[in-house]
Amino acid sequence: MVLENTVEPCDFVIFGTKGDLARRKLLPSLYQLEKASLVHRDTKIIGVARNEMSNGEYVALVKENIEKFSGQSLCEDTWARFSAKLDYVCLDMQDSLAYEGFKEHVDAKRTMVCYLATPPSIYGAICKGLNDAGIIDPTMRVVLEKPIGHDLASSKVINNQVAEYFRENQIYRIDHYLGKETVLNLIALRFANSIFATNWDHNCIDHVQISVSESVGIEGRWGYFDEAGQMRDMVQNHLLQILTLIAMEPPTTLDADSIRDEKLKVLKSLRPINSSNVGEKTVRGQYTGGFVKGKEVPGYLDEPDANQKSETETFVALKVELDNWRWAGVPFYLRTGKRMPTKVSEIVIYFKPQPHNLFKDSFAKLPPNKLTIRLQPDEGVEITVMNKVPGLTGSSSMNLQKSKLNLSFSETFADERIADAYEKLLLEVMIGNQALFVRRDEIEQAWTWVDSIIKAWESSNEPPEPYQAGTWGPVASIALMARDNRAWYESKLGKK
Amino acid sequence: MVLENTVEPCDFVIFGTKGDLARRKLLPSLYQLEKASLVHRDTKIIGVARNEMSNGEYVALVKENIEKFSGQSLCEDTWARFSAKLDYVCLDMQDSLAYEGFKEHVDAKRTMVCYLATPPSIYGAICKGLNDAGIIDPTMRVVLEKPIGHDLASSKVINNQVAEYFRENQIYRIDHYLGKETVLNLIALRFANSIFATNWDHNCIDHVQISVSESVGIEGRWGYFDEAGQMRDMVQNHLLQILTLIAMEPPTTLDADSIRDEKLKVLKSLRPINSSNVGEKTVRGQYTGGFVKGKEVPGYLDEPDANQKSETETFVALKVELDNWRWAGVPFYLRTGKRMPTKVSEIVIYFKPQPHNLFKDSFAKLPPNKLTIRLQPDEGVEITVMNKVPGLTGSSSMNLQKSKLNLSFSETFADERIADAYEKLLLEVMIGNQALFVRRDEIEQAWTWVDSIIKAWESSNEPPEPYQAGTWGPVASIALMARDNRAWYESKLGKK
Repeated sequence: MVLENTVEPCDFVIFGTKGDLARRKLLPSLYQLEKASLVHRDTKIIGVARNEMSNGEYVALVKENIEKFSGQSLCEDTWARFSAKLDYVCLDMQDSLAYEGFKEHVDAKRTMVCYLATPPSIYGAICKGLNDAGIIDPTMRVVLEKPIGHDLASSKVINNQVAEYFRENQIYRIDHYLGKETVLNLIALRFANSIFATNWDHNCIDHVQISVSESVGIEGRWGYFDEAGQMRDMVQNHLLQILTLIAMEPPTTLDADSIRDEKLKVLKSLRPINSSNVGEKTVRGQYTGGFVKGKEVPGYLDEPDANQKSETETFVALKVELDNWRWAGVPFYLRTGKRMPTKVSEIVIYFKPQPHNLFKDSFAKLPPNKLTIRLQPDEGVEITVMNKVPGLTGSSSMNLQKSKLNLSFSETFADERIADAYEKLLLEVMIGNQALFVRRDEIEQAWTWVDSIIKAWESSNEPPEPYQAGTWGPVASIALMARDNRAWYESKLGKK
Repeated sequence: MVLENTVEPCDFVIFGTKGDLARRKLLPSLYQLEKASLVHRDTKIIGVARNEMSNGEYVALVKENIEKFSGQSLCEDTWARFSAKLDYVCLDMQDSLAYEGFKEHVDAKRTMVCYLATPPSIYGAICKGLNDAGIIDPTMRVVLEKPIGHDLASSKVINNQVAEYFRENQIYRIDHYLGKETVLNLIALRFANSIFATNWDHNCIDHVQISVSESVGIEGRWGYFDEAGQMRDMVQNHLLQILTLIAMEPPTTLDADSIRDEKLKVLKSLRPINSSNVGEKTVRGQYTGGFVKGKEVPGYLDEPDANQKSETETFVALKVELDNWRWAGVPFYLRTGKRMPTKVSEIVIYFKPQPHNLFKDSFAKLPPNKLTIRLQPDEGVEITVMNKVPGLTGSSSMNLQKSKLNLSFSETFADERIADAYEKLLLEVMIGNQALFVRRDEIEQAWTWVDSIIKAWESSNEPPEPYQAGTWGPVASIALMARDNRAWYESKLGKK
């Protein structure tokens, strides 16, 4: 096996190291990577925040954090190696003069990675500060988190600010879904298996469903979410990313631009949704009070700090159509919402049914085959097939039933923990492979399509449809499918 | 669900009721059908043999038999109902005058089924006897067991003897493989699932393997087997039947002649094997002493009653080619033998590999997908796919591995016994559906093809290749595949 790239010695700088993302995801992930010996021994992990703190105090804080968020007790050896890599820099990130003192914490022999785990509004200031202090060089990598803007125009502003100092091949935009084991497995499934590849088009597939449901509500960040809404929070990024991986043409190689070129092509083929068709192609919902997993929960407008007049959607369902050769006539139905009965992320590919039914005594209409890719819970892959019911009957008919051929990753690899998506992504940053990060033109194309929908919603002046917390969304989302003689795949959602 | 046919009240006559087949298969199967309430309450089961015996003695004999061969303790209720149906007729089956007394045991209100569980040499005498006594009517069904002859000419003789008195739509020729749950499931799998149906041809399939291995040897019937050989014993019937079900065109309906017409078409498309190509297309073997499942066993020529000079084959491997649109260029490799390491029957469909390999870092050559249909042990279906290896590596390559999507019938239906093939077939006889029975033209076409091979073997004068008992056959059978850059599927044979 030829190793294309390997983990490099890095100065891994976390701007905003005391923030939520760093504490819950970045530091625990780096710790796990250290545990798996996937962090170069010369790598330094430099936390940057504006508080005064000694290195020792910082290390203690990180330790407490990792114990809390890593889901395991600390391994002494790993912690010893990991803590030896830690460094802390107190910095007013918006003061470009303050970066002069930063230089002594990094070394040109190591590749510098700047993870901007801060509000996007200060990305520009950080880049400027690094630049003015002469720290930036062509090998440096900068990692950005969503939200990168809230529409095309604002995303351009932020991306321009960063682009002033970094080339596109230095910029790593995170969509953490691209680090998920099962999402990556889509590439293996589609492109290493002729039994799927030969069926992957409008000839054999009837429609695709992508469903990302959360049982949680707003979790104490009402104002932040209310600005965004579910469309920006989940569809513009995660669901569209999944869609591109399902729909893309096979890339020529697995290098970053080969893959991202194909993903961009998918985004460009999405049929625009605007005022002329937004009513028939989209549904927006907002949850009211109800019961989730037996517990009573408040409605969106009754959450702490809620603005009673908000019309922000907590639920979106879309009928997406792709105007290209492979997918003409094959709708992709997307659905995502908060306060749904359970947390589930699934892709369900419905194949076209058999054209001629030999088994009318058993099924007046033969159920179609389905390929289900479960992203969570219980990561795995399942194919639903029709099978003869074993046993004898007093007639000569053949009785059929649905059966599942199942591959469960969590069962197969029960003793190994499944890596968090951030571990994969941080590793890829340290290797220097951009394949799992979003390119600027992808983001802008996604925003173009999404902006058109949001604009149409705004000019329609229609409020979101209510749905009770703990249900699968507003009635209109069922109608969205029913109008096409289809239905959301619900029977096993969330159940093992 | 419309019931096309249902179980009719029958006079189910077993000619040769004291013979091996009746004791091991027919009577226990009828008992199981009675247990499942699938025998019409007015049905009578009439055993015929040449010994003097009272009904009571016969019933006691049957009871002892069923206790021995049914694999369960007797259910009192079932036995009560079943034994009430039993009747015994002492008859010299070759004396046509003796059938006069037979008449009083049957009733025109019931459909008469005559199961000829006797040597084929007396089929004619039995049919004549029934005819001369005026018992035959157009509703009567006659069931024949293999071997029906040992070549085309002798099979015609036997079939003609029966055809003198019965029309083809009254004749039920048993190939018990057609009663196996998983063999029947081939029809469901192929024709109720578009994901398989669209891939079922030379575009997507590379080759097919059909492997039926037995660990037993001759089991005390050396002379009988030596006359026949493995080709006649297993290939001419069971393996060719499996092949036709895999290869057939979709029938228009599931009625008996629609299905059998398609099976006949397959048999007609088999490329002839004769002296010009028998050496490259076939392998014959004969087992020598060795170890099977840890136990030492004698070679074929050292079995009790063996003729030391016998050149009868106990192993056959064939490369079968179908000259038709669907299968041009797709070889079917057949293999069957006695004294192999374990008892296994499997069909393995090898799909063509992906034409373009994106995963060269992981596999220089991508393994193909396989669909495995296990007939025994552990009936079920399995698809081998390529999957991403979960977890992180210190390079940006994607590591793949083989995984299996599995559907095991014995696990799924653990609490229910899987019906013996004979139960299914006897039920179909009592329903009057010939779909699972072999039509005369099928048999004759199969003999034509098989005779040509046997004739070529005989004129080649080459002895069979030796293979040690407990191995997978002679080296030449590996070469048969290796010449085509293929290999027998062995890795999991016989293991759960």
